[in-house]
Amino acid sequence: MSDEKIAPRRIGILGGMGPAAAIDLQAKILAATPAGADREHLPVVVWNVPQVPDRVAAVLGAGPSPLPAMVEGARALEAAGCEAFAVACNTAHFWAAELAASVRIPLVHIADAAVEALASRPVPPLRVGLLATRGTLAAAFYGDRLARRGFEWLAPTEAEQRDLVDAAIARVKAGDAAGARAPLEAAVRALAARGADAVLLACTELPLAAEGAATAVPVLDASRALAEALVDFSLAR
Amino acid sequence: MSDEKIAPRRIGILGGMGPAAAIDLQAKILAATPAGADREHLPVVVWNVPQVPDRVAAVLGAGPSPLPAMVEGARALEAAGCEAFAVACNTAHFWAAELAASVRIPLVHIADAAVEALASRPVPPLRVGLLATRGTLAAAFYGDRLARRGFEWLAPTEAEQRDLVDAAIARVKAGDAAGARAPLEAAVRALAARGADAVLLACTELPLAAEGAATAVPVLDASRALAEALVDFSLAR
Repeated sequence: MSDEKIAPRRIGILGGMGPAAAIDLQAKILAATPAGADREHLPVVVWNVPQVPDRVAAVLGAGPSPLPAMVEGARALEAAGCEAFAVACNTAHFWAAELAASVRIPLVHIADAAVEALASRPVPPLRVGLLATRGTLAAAFYGDRLARRGFEWLAPTEAEQRDLVDAAIARVKAGDAAGARAPLEAAVRALAARGADAVLLACTELPLAAEGAATAVPVLDASRALAEALVDFSLAR
Repeated sequence: MSDEKIAPRRIGILGGMGPAAAIDLQAKILAATPAGADREHLPVVVWNVPQVPDRVAAVLGAGPSPLPAMVEGARALEAAGCEAFAVACNTAHFWAAELAASVRIPLVHIADAAVEALASRPVPPLRVGLLATRGTLAAAFYGDRLARRGFEWLAPTEAEQRDLVDAAIARVKAGDAAGARAPLEAAVRALAARGADAVLLACTELPLAAEGAATAVPVLDASRALAEALVDFSLAR
């Protein structure tokens, strides 16, 4: 029947990197879902197992690879009947290709979701400031996608990364999101001063620092864009 | 070696009833864990699939059983390597025995955790007020455990249940936790007036209404007690 309701597709979340980011992504999925009752929410399975080697250290060649632990999680999500999965950690997307190749279900890539969300703004930005971990910046998957989609983009200077971005992320990880607000605001201001007309928060910790922050230009949360892409996939919109 | 660190045991959460309660339980586990780094947090797998028949209706004989959907979730958590599991819904514990019998891993029962938490307070209450759904009250598993542990207990009157407890739960489910605060405070006041010296919030929605509430007597959150019991299990404390 044409008006028959199609069951939403089951979504997997590969978390643990860190565990709070996976909880935050679930809350953003819930908020992004047009549901009037429990049963209209997305079916979600979450692998929130944080015993994973450090991602930033591994990208920078200073530690063991987290890929085997990530593959174990992705396979468990596939075995649990998920029809697609996402990773609740930007830096971990350094291993996106190998991870996606380890299962038969598609990976909804956070950078694809974020860059598409930027492109679909009523007035898309011309030059995007990118705030992320050193690992994500070194992995280049955001810059590549931004350039391919026609955006100019810029990253913090070494001093800004160290004193503002790394500092803000560390404060959030230590449970002090309010204390992370001032360095985040300063990082956004520095990027805006060099011509950014929007800033992409491409680290799952930074949106927590942005709550209540007064930013010089609009900021877009990559996690929120990922949540919306997952809702679209599940509801086949 | 005697000082070798023992890996934390993997925990399963059977959620979806509703999905926000499973996210709330995860946040309470995170808060209850003595961790200084991502990897010290508990390994958790979450089955947050809300396509489950209504629990209150089923307990009251007015709808299909949610048990088959719950068993599917418990088996998926067992297959994902969880060594114990918990259910993020009080009312669903009506089916606790059948559910526990469907898998080989133990169920950490929310009412066991809550009643033990009451008993281990510095000054345990003498008479406990019980706030829950009609389904949980009809299922009697809280009252049985409270009585067995030597607590007197009392529930709201029919009018209090309808006008205060059911109303508060419905408001939280509709996203209006602030609007649920006044009916919750009134329900606690009514139980205190009839002799309760503590109130147990035995519905996963009610703690959200209790945030910032001025309660006549101390309230204990069954979800928080469950989170603490899961941390104890995982860390083998």
